[in-house]
Amino acid sequence: MPPHTIPEGVPIVGWDIGGANTKGARIETVFRTVSAPLEMPREFPSLVPTLRRLARELGGDPAVHAVTMTAELSQAFRTKREGVGFVLDAMAEAFPSQTVRVYGFGGFRDPAEARAMPLEVGAANWHAAARFVGRHTRDCILVDIGTTTTDIIPIVSGEPATAGRTDPERLMSGELVYTGALRTPVECVAAAVPLGGKLCPLAPESFALIGDAYLRLGLLDARDYSVATPDGRPRTREYAGERLARAVCADREMLDDEAVDAIARALAEAQAARVAAGIELMRIRHPALTVAVVTGLGDFIAANAAQRSGFEVVRLAERIGEAARTAPAAAVAWLLANTLTPV
Amino acid sequence: MPPHTIPEGVPIVGWDIGGANTKGARIETVFRTVSAPLEMPREFPSLVPTLRRLARELGGDPAVHAVTMTAELSQAFRTKREGVGFVLDAMAEAFPSQTVRVYGFGGFRDPAEARAMPLEVGAANWHAAARFVGRHTRDCILVDIGTTTTDIIPIVSGEPATAGRTDPERLMSGELVYTGALRTPVECVAAAVPLGGKLCPLAPESFALIGDAYLRLGLLDARDYSVATPDGRPRTREYAGERLARAVCADREMLDDEAVDAIARALAEAQAARVAAGIELMRIRHPALTVAVVTGLGDFIAANAAQRSGFEVVRLAERIGEAARTAPAAAVAWLLANTLTPV
Repeated sequence: MPPHTIPEGVPIVGWDIGGANTKGARIETVFRTVSAPLEMPREFPSLVPTLRRLARELGGDPAVHAVTMTAELSQAFRTKREGVGFVLDAMAEAFPSQTVRVYGFGGFRDPAEARAMPLEVGAANWHAAARFVGRHTRDCILVDIGTTTTDIIPIVSGEPATAGRTDPERLMSGELVYTGALRTPVECVAAAVPLGGKLCPLAPESFALIGDAYLRLGLLDARDYSVATPDGRPRTREYAGERLARAVCADREMLDDEAVDAIARALAEAQAARVAAGIELMRIRHPALTVAVVTGLGDFIAANAAQRSGFEVVRLAERIGEAARTAPAAAVAWLLANTLTPV
Repeated sequence: MPPHTIPEGVPIVGWDIGGANTKGARIETVFRTVSAPLEMPREFPSLVPTLRRLARELGGDPAVHAVTMTAELSQAFRTKREGVGFVLDAMAEAFPSQTVRVYGFGGFRDPAEARAMPLEVGAANWHAAARFVGRHTRDCILVDIGTTTTDIIPIVSGEPATAGRTDPERLMSGELVYTGALRTPVECVAAAVPLGGKLCPLAPESFALIGDAYLRLGLLDARDYSVATPDGRPRTREYAGERLARAVCADREMLDDEAVDAIARALAEAQAARVAAGIELMRIRHPALTVAVVTGLGDFIAANAAQRSGFEVVRLAERIGEAARTAPAAAVAWLLANTLTPV
């Protein structure tokens, strides 16, 4: 179905379907956005009703849907091909009489075409976000820190100037840093943290998430802690502290508040240093870039790291508001809106 | 209750109650052992029936029970005190008319006493194993690699010569290395693995366990893969390969067998190097020690690492057979049997 068959004036809803969250953004003159946590392996059957509910929240009238996804990496699927097919089946079932377009590196595809090209349409959400940002800021580094991952994308003359496309290529090029502001287990952020004047290794048990450190430090709002806590207990400073104490195999009878706060600070510092190293790597590749556009749940981490490296920091949230939290969903809606030729 | 009130001739069952496995060993003239996976946060209510079933498997007649535990660290409990209490409640409910003794650093305690001293009886299982081994091999390094953790314990003149007692102290002293032969997520074993001639960082998503690497390499039997697989799929070479491919955000359509095997080998190598570094640290502290006693599910890893460091390797399994897999359970049974004064 060529782009010109999309009816004029119909709103476009962009979707970014991940393994842990499903995000939507509807474009008219301003963005409206929605988001729902939906953990792929366990809550799979609920993708269709989740999409329908989120679409209603965005204004339930018929729409054109632009989709990007990372959910295909979920261990619910044996292959990315299977995952891409599942997501597109869900889109078709949720919106049977509406138009669906799938973002790929080479442009939007119809679902039948997309299904056969899992590496073209899977994990392309960062590319859409980069092209969207590149329309306004032609030369910059985009740093998007979500719940789970960090994208560090050089944008040159409005287009992503990247060294890899697939997830493994991007991990190796440093453009995908698999660390996020919420879901990353603390033991994957730092090998050890200060304890009683020494360094204590962390237990690889997912006893605490990096979100617990930011919650403890007042940098993350409990409402943004959108996944289950590791111990199933509340999203509060106190309970976050218990989880952090357990990460060094201790408990709150063994550690006082100051010891727990020191662990939280060390984790935040370690993650900032890791993001800063990633930004520094891109600066070495693209020494002419001086602006960093930061976005995502962890934009405060990105801003801090980029400032240290001497970049001028622009928060995407200042330009597009809440939609910055769901930048790829907003991006695919915007990009599709701007590729349409009215009938 | 002083030791001499324990009736003569009654068999002693030793228990090592962990957060992921419950192990028992009954001592008469030879050990009989049993083990059951039981993941604390999710399967808690089943501890009592599990204990009863395992006791029946060990020969159902009345016994004296010697207990050691690490389950108190589980996130099912807010504090170690709560965890110790829960385990002792379960012992009392499972064996109401039988005698229970709890291993502590200062010797066996009755349950009421043990309850008030969580740091005395919690996570003391390594100490019992070391004292047991020390009765036969007076000077050695004990390397016990279980499903989840590694204990590296210098034994001098028959007693553990350690620098720490609590879990955090032992993490900091290097005597507890939080890496095991099965449950450790691969991203906590190595930061990156070879892929297409480069190094690819691993996704911290618990997509694969180190057990998948050993299963893939034929070093771990599927029957010993006693926990659920991360993706819920079978414990086979093929599916282990899919899980390892996902750990670099790839799938089996993107990677061939050789690429997957290279990932598995690199992970095994990284873990061996880590254990070897831990052994080397103890050798620096105790240069006179020349023998390493290796045990646990990962004794093959320990043997390899100790040999590299020039130690003479003794497999505990050669001395006590299958009981070496559950060394702390065997140890508490043996130690209690040997502290009893017949009436």
